[in-house]
Formats: sequence, structure tokens, C-alpha cells
Amino acid sequence: MISSILIIGTGLIGTSLALALKRTQPGIRVIGIDPHAESLDAAIARGAVDHAGSMEHVSKVDVVVLAAPVRQITLTLAAIAPLLRDHTIITDVGSTKQDVIAAARSALANRVSQFVPAHPIAGREQHGPAAADALLFDGKKTIITPLAENNRQSIGMITKLWEQAGASVVEMDASTHDAVFAAVSHLPHMLAFTMVNELASRPNAKTLFSHAASGFRDFTRIASSSPEMWRDIALNNRDALLQEFDQFLLRANEMRELIASRDENGLREFMRQAEKARGYWLSGQWSQFNNVDNDANDKT
Amino acid sequence: MISSILIIGTGLIGTSLALALKRTQPGIRVIGIDPHAESLDAAIARGAVDHAGSMEHVSKVDVVVLAAPVRQITLTLAAIAPLLRDHTIITDVGSTKQDVIAAARSALANRVSQFVPAHPIAGREQHGPAAADALLFDGKKTIITPLAENNRQSIGMITKLWEQAGASVVEMDASTHDAVFAAVSHLPHMLAFTMVNELASRPNAKTLFSHAASGFRDFTRIASSSPEMWRDIALNNRDALLQEFDQFLLRANEMRELIASRDENGLREFMRQAEKARGYWLSGQWSQFNNVDNDANDKT
Repeated sequence: MISSILIIGTGLIGTSLALALKRTQPGIRVIGIDPHAESLDAAIARGAVDHAGSMEHVSKVDVVVLAAPVRQITLTLAAIAPLLRDHTIITDVGSTKQDVIAAARSALANRVSQFVPAHPIAGREQHGPAAADALLFDGKKTIITPLAENNRQSIGMITKLWEQAGASVVEMDASTHDAVFAAVSHLPHMLAFTMVNELASRPNAKTLFSHAASGFRDFTRIASSSPEMWRDIALNNRDALLQEFDQFLLRANEMRELIASRDENGLREFMRQAEKARGYWLSGQWSQFNNVDNDANDKT
Repeated sequence: MISSILIIGTGLIGTSLALALKRTQPGIRVIGIDPHAESLDAAIARGAVDHAGSMEHVSKVDVVVLAAPVRQITLTLAAIAPLLRDHTIITDVGSTKQDVIAAARSALANRVSQFVPAHPIAGREQHGPAAADALLFDGKKTIITPLAENNRQSIGMITKLWEQAGASVVEMDASTHDAVFAAVSHLPHMLAFTMVNELASRPNAKTLFSHAASGFRDFTRIASSSPEMWRDIALNNRDALLQEFDQFLLRANEMRELIASRDENGLREFMRQAEKARGYWLSGQWSQFNNVDNDANDKT
């Protein structure tokens, strides 16, 4: 039973989590901390946070949620370590997990069993408490990457927290998590930033953007994400991300070569694999999707 | 005054154009041709097309709209050339313009003045007449890339046609058109196909796709586009597209290097340029955007 939580970082995710919990657990007490007074004030004004707290509250709540960008999470872990009592569980919302776990091991030492790493797979490109939404996690997944040191009770408590916020919980090991999200989230963000940066740097940027339509808008939506947050994610998941970069650039060069050599059939097949795979993904027809997969493997 | 049109190709764009014209010009007579009987039947069933036609109708209508993929457009131009009379204006909806114009010059010879090239900047990833929408062009742009041989009356007629379909018309020369759309449309499509193709080809594709969320969904939406249509666009706008590929790949390598070298400030600035530029684009604050542009130029 979670009766009180301390949310450190009342941005989009922290404030949305508070709103989601208030919705299903009206009795819960939510204390907030944020280095930006206006963020904290906005979270309080929205009714997400009951009152502003201080680090002393770490010893007075059931759960501490580290909801800052990943770099701040590692700094905050060091700050809260000396204040931690036996009964408190710490969790985070970081988009990368191995780095946060390494920081937690270093900061929390023999209390690391009290840290249950988590990553809600939900977000939007707008940031800050004004963009928060009580339904942000509804029907979405939250990944928990448990430590060997965690007991089932602690994991169960954080699982419950996210279920109460509307999410379904999936457990995964941290290195798999980081590899999977480098591929399906981190690299797409980098490519969207790259596309907009490239066009914005040109002398005719204004002409280019004035003719960009809905395809471009959706392709680059994630380039409106927080630069600070995504810089941290990129650097904290550097190795997996660089590997994804290299595999993508190889594949992009393969497509470039199909175009350069006017390989009509090869180009159509390349596109068709993508179109089919995406169709199976959207419709959830995994058995069919395996066929696509095998086709693709046969080809290469 | 356009009282009758022949639409050759009753897919998404042809059928949407017919529906849009019927909406504002209820008296207009729309004749359709499509090599796929089911497409034509569907366009007729939707009330977009009044009846099926044959190539003979080329001589009997005010405007012929070539609404097939670009490769078919060039074949169709050759087929209709001998049937063309003085009063008929031909236009197209191709996403590339220099190649269509070259084909028109070759096929139509001294009647090329009757061909007014156009490109409606609207679409969706679904294709076929079932996806057609009377409001598809509403508030969107249509680019006309007039030929030196076109008279103002012909250009005015096609301008009127698209305005009646809800679009606003912009004139541009064909080579500028092809360069602009290689950058803001064609390359993003290639990159989206590449991203999905790459992940679909992996042994763990199923795991990867099962964790892909809304960022990935929007980034890859255009990878559900028609492979045949986009193969044709890629090959017909090959030179401009390859140039865009190379510039993008250089920029992607620049970002990769910022990550590899852990350049925190450089990476944040790279992302911030993109985030700011996209914000100015969405809000239409071009004067501010120019500043971003200059900043970016100063940096490089």
C-alpha cells in the first residue's frame, strides 16, 4: 500500500504520474521537488502535487520517484543516499537503464536493493508540467529492469504504482532494454533532429520549410523533443546508440545504392519489406510478421 | 469554365480530386480510366466518377488529369498524344516534375503547350479510392510548374481546377520543385523505409516492434506508403534525391561524431537548432527562423 510519494522532477513525466495516481488513488499524498520553482508551482497549481518538499522527505515517504532527465537522476541518487531509511523504495523513469543502475550501485552501495529501475514507454514532444496528462500512461507499457538485489516485494510495489497509473508492466534485463530502445526510440530521435538541423542550416531553409507537409511534420515530430533530455539519453546509451547508427547508415547506403544504380526491383522490394512489416506491426499479426522476417533474412 | 474532365488513374489522388470537384462543382462531368477495374468501380461506387471512359474521351473533355504514378504518367502521355485536340488541357499530379515535363515534350511535341504540370501537396499513406477524401486538398498547396510554352489561359484553367478542389496554387520552376521536394518529402520517405526495413530484417524484429511506441509510429508513418509509387519517385528524381542522401548522411555522421566524442555542448546545440527551427516552422514565425538560420550558418 503506497500512501505517500516524493516526486523529484515535476516535468511532463513526473507531473503526469502524479495526476494519474491522484485519479485512481485519491487518498495518495504527493510531495514534489523541482529545481525550477515555476515547474513545481505549475504542478501544484494543477493539483498533481500536494505541496513542495525538501530532500528531508526522502525519509518520510513510501516511494521516491526520480523523474528528472537521466543526468539529474544520477546526481540526485548521490544526494538522497544518506537520507534513505529501510522502508523507502526508490524508482526512476529514465529512458536508459544500465547507466542509471551503475550510478545507483555507486551512490546507494548496500542500499541498492531499495532501487527498482523503471521506464514508462510514454511521452510527448512537449515538455513541462503544462503538457502533463493524467492519461499519459493509460494502456501504455512501463518496463521494469529489476536488479538481482531487489526483493519481489519491492518490485511488486513499483509494479503496482505503474498499474495504478494506468500502465501495464513488463520486466526485462537492463542491457536488453537499452539495446531495444536505442533501436526503436533513441536512433529515430537522432535522425529526426538530424533532418531538421540539416534543412535549417541551408540558405534556402525558409523555402524548404514552407513546402514541408504532413509527411515531414510526422517524420520530424520527435525533433521537437527536449534537447537536454535527448542529449543525456544519447550520451548515457552511447554504445548501443552508436551501434544503431552504424547499422542504420549501412542500410541507408544500401538504399542509396539501389537508387544510384537504378535497381527498380531491388528498390521496390526494399520498400515493400518495410511497408509489409509496418502493416503487420500495426495490425499485430505477428505470425505473418515472422514470414516477412524470414523473407528478409533469405534475401540477405 | 471546366464542364468535363477525364481522370486517368482513379487511386487516392484521382478519386479525391473527383470528390473535391463534385463537392464544389456539382454539375461537372467526371469520366474515369484505370487499368485496375476494381479501382475504377470503387471510384464510380463512391460517386466520384460518373462513368468509365476510354482513351477516345481525351478528345471530348476540357481537361485530362494524369493521376497515375509518375512512371505511368510518362507512358500515358505517349498514348494520348495522337488523340489530343486543340481545346483540351492536360495536367498531371506527379510528385516529380522535370521527368514528367521531359516525357511530355517528347510525347506531345508541338502540343506540349497544352500540358500544364502540377503537383498537389497532399496525400496519405493509405492508397486506392477507398482512402479518397473530398477534403484531401482543402487548405493544402498545389504547385504548378508552368512551361515557357503554356499560355496564361491554360495555366489559369488548371489553377482554377485546384482552387475548386480546395487548394491554393503556387507557381515554381520545375527544377526548384524537384530539389525542394527531394529535401522535404522524398528523402524523409526513403529514411522511413530504411528504418523499418533495417529493424524488420533483424532476428529480434518481433521484440523490437513490440516495444516501438508513438515516436516510432509517427517517424515511420510514411513507410506505409506505396512501394511502387515511391520507387518511381525515387528513380525519377534520382539526382536531386542522391544529393539529399549525401547531405543527410554527412550531417548524420556529424551527429554520430558528437555522440562518439561525448561532446555534450555540441550535441545539445545540434539538437537545439533542430528543436528551435521546428518550433518556428510550426508557429510560422519566419523572422525568428531567419535568426536560427544565421546562427546555424555562423556555426559551420
